[in-house]
Amino acid sequence: MRHFLTTQDYSRPEIESLLDAAAELKRAPCQPLLANRSIALVFFNPSLRTRTSFDVGIRQLGGHAVVLEPGKGAWPISFDALEDHPVMEGDEEEHVAEVARVLSRYCDLIAVRAFPKFKSWEVDRLDLVIRAFARYATVPVINLETITHPCQELALALTLREKLGRLDGRKFLLTWTYHPRPLNTAVANSAALIASKLGMDVTLLCPTEEYRLDERYLAAAQQNAADNGRTFTVTHDIAAAYRGADMVYAKSWGALPYFGRWDAEKPIREAHRHFMVDRAKMDLTPDAYFSHCLPVRRNVKVSDEVIDSPRSLVIDEAENRLHVQKAVMTYLLGQR
Amino acid sequence: MRHFLTTQDYSRPEIESLLDAAAELKRAPCQPLLANRSIALVFFNPSLRTRTSFDVGIRQLGGHAVVLEPGKGAWPISFDALEDHPVMEGDEEEHVAEVARVLSRYCDLIAVRAFPKFKSWEVDRLDLVIRAFARYATVPVINLETITHPCQELALALTLREKLGRLDGRKFLLTWTYHPRPLNTAVANSAALIASKLGMDVTLLCPTEEYRLDERYLAAAQQNAADNGRTFTVTHDIAAAYRGADMVYAKSWGALPYFGRWDAEKPIREAHRHFMVDRAKMDLTPDAYFSHCLPVRRNVKVSDEVIDSPRSLVIDEAENRLHVQKAVMTYLLGQR
Amino acid sequence: MRHFLTTQDYSRPEIESLLDAAAELKRAPCQPLLANRSIALVFFNPSLRTRTSFDVGIRQLGGHAVVLEPGKGAWPISFDALEDHPVMEGDEEEHVAEVARVLSRYCDLIAVRAFPKFKSWEVDRLDLVIRAFARYATVPVINLETITHPCQELALALTLREKLGRLDGRKFLLTWTYHPRPLNTAVANSAALIASKLGMDVTLLCPTEEYRLDERYLAAAQQNAADNGRTFTVTHDIAAAYRGADMVYAKSWGALPYFGRWDAEKPIREAHRHFMVDRAKMDLTPDAYFSHCLPVRRNVKVSDEVIDSPRSLVIDEAENRLHVQKAVMTYLLGQR
Repeated sequence: MRHFLTTQDYSRPEIESLLDAAAELKRAPCQPLLANRSIALVFFNPSLRTRTSFDVGIRQLGGHAVVLEPGKGAWPISFDALEDHPVMEGDEEEHVAEVARVLSRYCDLIAVRAFPKFKSWEVDRLDLVIRAFARYATVPVINLETITHPCQELALALTLREKLGRLDGRKFLLTWTYHPRPLNTAVANSAALIASKLGMDVTLLCPTEEYRLDERYLAAAQQNAADNGRTFTVTHDIAAAYRGADMVYAKSWGALPYFGRWDAEKPIREAHRHFMVDRAKMDLTPDAYFSHCLPVRRNVKVSDEVIDSPRSLVIDEAENRLHVQKAVMTYLLGQR
Repeated sequence: MRHFLTTQDYSRPEIESLLDAAAELKRAPCQPLLANRSIALVFFNPSLRTRTSFDVGIRQLGGHAVVLEPGKGAWPISFDALEDHPVMEGDEEEHVAEVARVLSRYCDLIAVRAFPKFKSWEVDRLDLVIRAFARYATVPVINLETITHPCQELALALTLREKLGRLDGRKFLLTWTYHPRPLNTAVANSAALIASKLGMDVTLLCPTEEYRLDERYLAAAQQNAADNGRTFTVTHDIAAAYRGADMVYAKSWGALPYFGRWDAEKPIREAHRHFMVDRAKMDLTPDAYFSHCLPVRRNVKVSDEVIDSPRSLVIDEAENRLHVQKAVMTYLLGQR
Repeated sequence: MRHFLTTQDYSRPEIESLLDAAAELKRAPCQPLLANRSIALVFFNPSLRTRTSFDVGIRQLGGHAVVLEPGKGAWPISFDALEDHPVMEGDEEEHVAEVARVLSRYCDLIAVRAFPKFKSWEVDRLDLVIRAFARYATVPVINLETITHPCQELALALTLREKLGRLDGRKFLLTWTYHPRPLNTAVANSAALIASKLGMDVTLLCPTEEYRLDERYLAAAQQNAADNGRTFTVTHDIAAAYRGADMVYAKSWGALPYFGRWDAEKPIREAHRHFMVDRAKMDLTPDAYFSHCLPVRRNVKVSDEVIDSPRSLVIDEAENRLHVQKAVMTYLLGQR
């Protein structure tokens, strides 16, 4: 039994094979590959695309999605380590061990969205919620975004393949952008991982050293690049970064050294509003494609002109969530 | 591609044809007309009947409903005009342009409930939310109640046809009633539109001139009546209004001149509690039918005696939501 | 037409027959017994297992579940007696009479979860919400936990049959445990009812006389035991209660004499934390099984050692919810 927690657990050929399956499912979307199967979609955080694309995709394959929102419609859950024999006298009414085991009796897959708590990165980087589900579940677990977002990675990768063909040696720019609130680094981590894994030359553009991603993901992306004989570079030079890019991928995130102390980070972020992706920056590229994972704030992260241009892939990438997720589910259940 | 935003976009023969289809689907409710189709049901406001009847109806036709609640389970959405190039620094995490375009990739229909904000009627009457969905979606959009409620109109019309047969020249009374809070005018607008469109003589009974509906709907109902050689009348005389009525349709709404200043309207409303539909008023009619769109407050809008009488059509009308909506969906998707 | 509100409305042979059907459905879970059927699941309170197991079970039988949450996604509902002709000027927008009648037009079954309000036991014990649904619905109504939890009873019974075979004369211990908040007596009432109905010798262990269950359920359990020639005993002696037990079933509940005055009860509860099910107590039994309905607080109601032992049936019992509920639904709809 295999989980889908991060693409780093999968080899490049395995990822390519998932993308091939996704392309096939895009051509023939309705097949009874999940007939009589039920999939639990557990959301600790809001969702539009993830929820809709999983729900629709599962149904197109003849399966059934159950959407659960612990703490809202369902009981609050404890994730304390069982090794510590926690005395559960707080707000939580049950332990993830029971939740994961029971859901495993009802469902064939458990998919979980659990964003960081944004208090301590040392805690959040342990990814305790999804790791606990994976530990106690007796069915495969899928990551719907925690501190990485592997389903988004596959959607991005499929979109890139559709537009660029073979990705080896193509230039992928991952650029930080401003956002009024400090956001999760998950999609940024994920973009760095997948672009490097698939053989692209990757540049991470961020305002200052403080906006570097967690060393775990920088090192993994570096290793991916090395494995492919490619480069992974961090820069703060906007013009240099855009020059030569085949793909510009935008994302905002909070600076890790200020994690949980966001008031202190705010002035730094505010000083870098000019990182917004706009026409002038895109003109530095050889007609690069643009994308973003959505939701996106217009004229904050990207100008209307860029997001509404023919080179914008945001809607295609969102659509591809549907296809890649169907490939992941059928793979995990041994249906292909 | 056609939307279903208001019955005014449809000719009388088109409406009659939808009602015929609904009657057929009532006789044979389970047919695979929506097989492999997914429908997004987007609720900005609460719902019991709309949600259940769409969900069940879609399923009876072999399709799949996805229920979304922006701001609760899904991200808050901006509806600012893109022409103004809004800088999205508020609470909204994404623009309806992206939401509608992405949902159009996942689903075959998008249905939207978006009540007025009740601050400014000049704003609310623009019906911006559903208009924006219709503008950016690449699939048909259905109105689940905004400032009109066309699905309720069809349910009312089907119920009237079932009980009265041919509607031309029958007397339809739309009466305002008291309610402790100022309510949406949507169902009142809609009742006036559909009854006049289908050839009934329509009387709108309201306490004072201040409770007249928006001129747009009064004019449309007037035009509908004229097209059919029938009458559309506004009155404040209870006894005169009930006399001769074949159908009494009750609804409460807030007075438009006091829109957003509800404290000022409250005393006027309170002075007209006697508009409640009761036995004495019904006795003025030649045994008229009674209905209301639900939810209804008993003994505030209508007495128990009337709503529980054999002439009450409230449950039949609610049931007919199921059938007419199935007719609308299959029509929009070209399945009939 | 029959409802499923409490197992006391069903004879022992009828219950045994439901359990036989459940065992069959466990062996062959996917059969189109609910094809073209829709079931409303109405939740006034949170749920994980109930919601998931009904949703999945309905789907495995080819049916369709609609999940409604009045007061959240749906309108708040009044349960005032219609005989009193209530003037509905409060928060409730509609009466259960309309809700139940309308849902009966859309759906083939209505299942309702409505916990006590925890203000007055004299009111809560009337079980007004589900009784009102049963009164006005024109389709069968299923209890998803109110002041009893009959679906949990059947799951417990099926699990006991799987482990113990014939239950007559086996010793069932129902033990109160500590919990930081006063909980519903529903599962305790239900465990006493079903174990006595199926021929077990039942011991109810609770800290003081104040923790006795409602006389209605004690009398019913006593009668059940008498009908089977068995015993039903209440005790406060922990060691005596565990000795000889074949099954230890744990549940916490608030003391009825302090209902709604929980501050006064708190010190008594706090003085009985030692009722937690642990290894030492289980060692008094001849290797008894242990179970609990979930959610359970570890190391508060039960020690890790016991719940994680091979004799713990908590996950099996939770799984069996799925199977017994499918048996109930198909029985109520005459599909077996």
